[in-house]
Amino acid sequence: MTATVVAVPDGAPDWLVTAVRDGGATIGPLSAADALMQVGATGGLPALSDQVRWVQLSSAGIEGYLRSGVIDDRRVWTSAAGAYADTVAEHAVGMLLAGVRGLVTAAGRTRWDPAAVARSTTGLGGSTVAVVGAGGIGRRVMALLAPFGVTTLAVNRSGQPVDGAARTIPADRIEELWSAGVDHVVLAAPATAASHHLVGADELAALTPASWVVNIARGSLIDTDALIAAVTAGRIAGAALDVTDPEPLPDGHPLWTAPGVIITPHTANPAHLAHGALAARIRENVARFVAGRQLLGVIDLGAGY
Amino acid sequence: MTATVVAVPDGAPDWLVTAVRDGGATIGPLSAADALMQVGATGGLPALSDQVRWVQLSSAGIEGYLRSGVIDDRRVWTSAAGAYADTVAEHAVGMLLAGVRGLVTAAGRTRWDPAAVARSTTGLGGSTVAVVGAGGIGRRVMALLAPFGVTTLAVNRSGQPVDGAARTIPADRIEELWSAGVDHVVLAAPATAASHHLVGADELAALTPASWVVNIARGSLIDTDALIAAVTAGRIAGAALDVTDPEPLPDGHPLWTAPGVIITPHTANPAHLAHGALAARIRENVARFVAGRQLLGVIDLGAGY
Repeated sequence: MTATVVAVPDGAPDWLVTAVRDGGATIGPLSAADALMQVGATGGLPALSDQVRWVQLSSAGIEGYLRSGVIDDRRVWTSAAGAYADTVAEHAVGMLLAGVRGLVTAAGRTRWDPAAVARSTTGLGGSTVAVVGAGGIGRRVMALLAPFGVTTLAVNRSGQPVDGAARTIPADRIEELWSAGVDHVVLAAPATAASHHLVGADELAALTPASWVVNIARGSLIDTDALIAAVTAGRIAGAALDVTDPEPLPDGHPLWTAPGVIITPHTANPAHLAHGALAARIRENVARFVAGRQLLGVIDLGAGY
Repeated sequence: MTATVVAVPDGAPDWLVTAVRDGGATIGPLSAADALMQVGATGGLPALSDQVRWVQLSSAGIEGYLRSGVIDDRRVWTSAAGAYADTVAEHAVGMLLAGVRGLVTAAGRTRWDPAAVARSTTGLGGSTVAVVGAGGIGRRVMALLAPFGVTTLAVNRSGQPVDGAARTIPADRIEELWSAGVDHVVLAAPATAASHHLVGADELAALTPASWVVNIARGSLIDTDALIAAVTAGRIAGAALDVTDPEPLPDGHPLWTAPGVIITPHTANPAHLAHGALAARIRENVARFVAGRQLLGVIDLGAGY
């Protein structure tokens, strides 16, 4: 049996080399490789011969690769979708709680003003939370929310019932979500043509003055202008955003100072937390590749993620 | 059988009257009452004859009543201890997540600076959280934290193992906690002589530059000067405080602007959320009183809570 050869970028970090070897493959040059780990590469994707049967990317969202057209159909491509679910879901729940517990209102104050903060403390227990996108992150969000006593409404592509959701709505009937009595929304869906401006003026109008919108997916899922209008008018309580449109958000953009908005600069999955999760995913996928088994995170060119 | 008569303060809210009646008692004047619901009263406690066999207070922490000496041993007194566990525990977990997810660092920023926020995003999963005080709030905090994959160390008076805790340490041996590898601390213990300045310079020195201290109990549990010194020197990451010492925190106090500190002005249990929980507790306790059963939240004068 010939050893499986996996190429890594020049100057690959030790943890990547270790993960590939622990998965059971040998590190070798791209010219001799069966697979490429496109992780931590500073340049773009190198030219690939047909001998390279698999490319592992390091990000969970891969719409940029799709747009640039480098993802071909001559080999299997995998993203890190789902690998970062634990840390990103933690971030989403932290953002939602920061909203409903009045922390966004309290942050930066320098006067003891209980009335102002209490007004924005609505609590999570007993509320209905829509989780849009029930992949690894969305399902993990639901698991973390369960003990808080929330009712979860899931949205996924298939409409197949999601464990723990009171109701699962297929993405192509998402309009049903907005009439289902949603208090808060967590966006965890990939950026596709179908999810572009998934939350706009009409959807925001279906929420309440106590509602929070959390986005840990991609900025394009929200119509930024409509969001600013909704928080400014107090039609919703606020938005907690790890991603924005545009991104990076430029200095002076009105979203920075819109009332009830808190922004983390795409830090739900910071590098120092991501490495461990990506190493585990790569070790697992290399082992699967060596054994000829189905890889995790295979990109579906038709679905766009 | 004579009806049980319960007195409520002048101008008692409808929900209180309803809770007493739903519990099976009749509302009547204090002069004819078997029990007093000291809830929402604007003045102090009225003079009580020995006919009043039970007084229900509306707060969970009752050290102020104890200090003033009004709690006598001629009847049973109950606090609302445990009644607000759901909302206060939610607040505690929200504060801890806001800390470890970099939200305290991110709040109020108006520039896209991922490096600064990522540095303070350490994550909760895999960490060890000390929950000091394993009453209703502490146990609820532990239940909410469980799915995040944290190891919990509980501290209670008895040292009797607390469900879900990797280890339970009796309060009189709390020094063992600080050498047990604690990442974060949630304070949920009553204010007593024993818990005064439970977290001081020595305890803070046992934590790490990534540690968060959350206080949803009473301000006196933390040595404020020592806390300010620790966050200012970066010996811990920050503190999320719903209670302070002094409280209310005066304008210009250095805690307002200490790095990594977020303060909610004793709003973990705002009135609009508390009413429902207190109504349920009163309904239950009145029913128990009518039936001659043990009440919930009986104050232990010896323990001081």
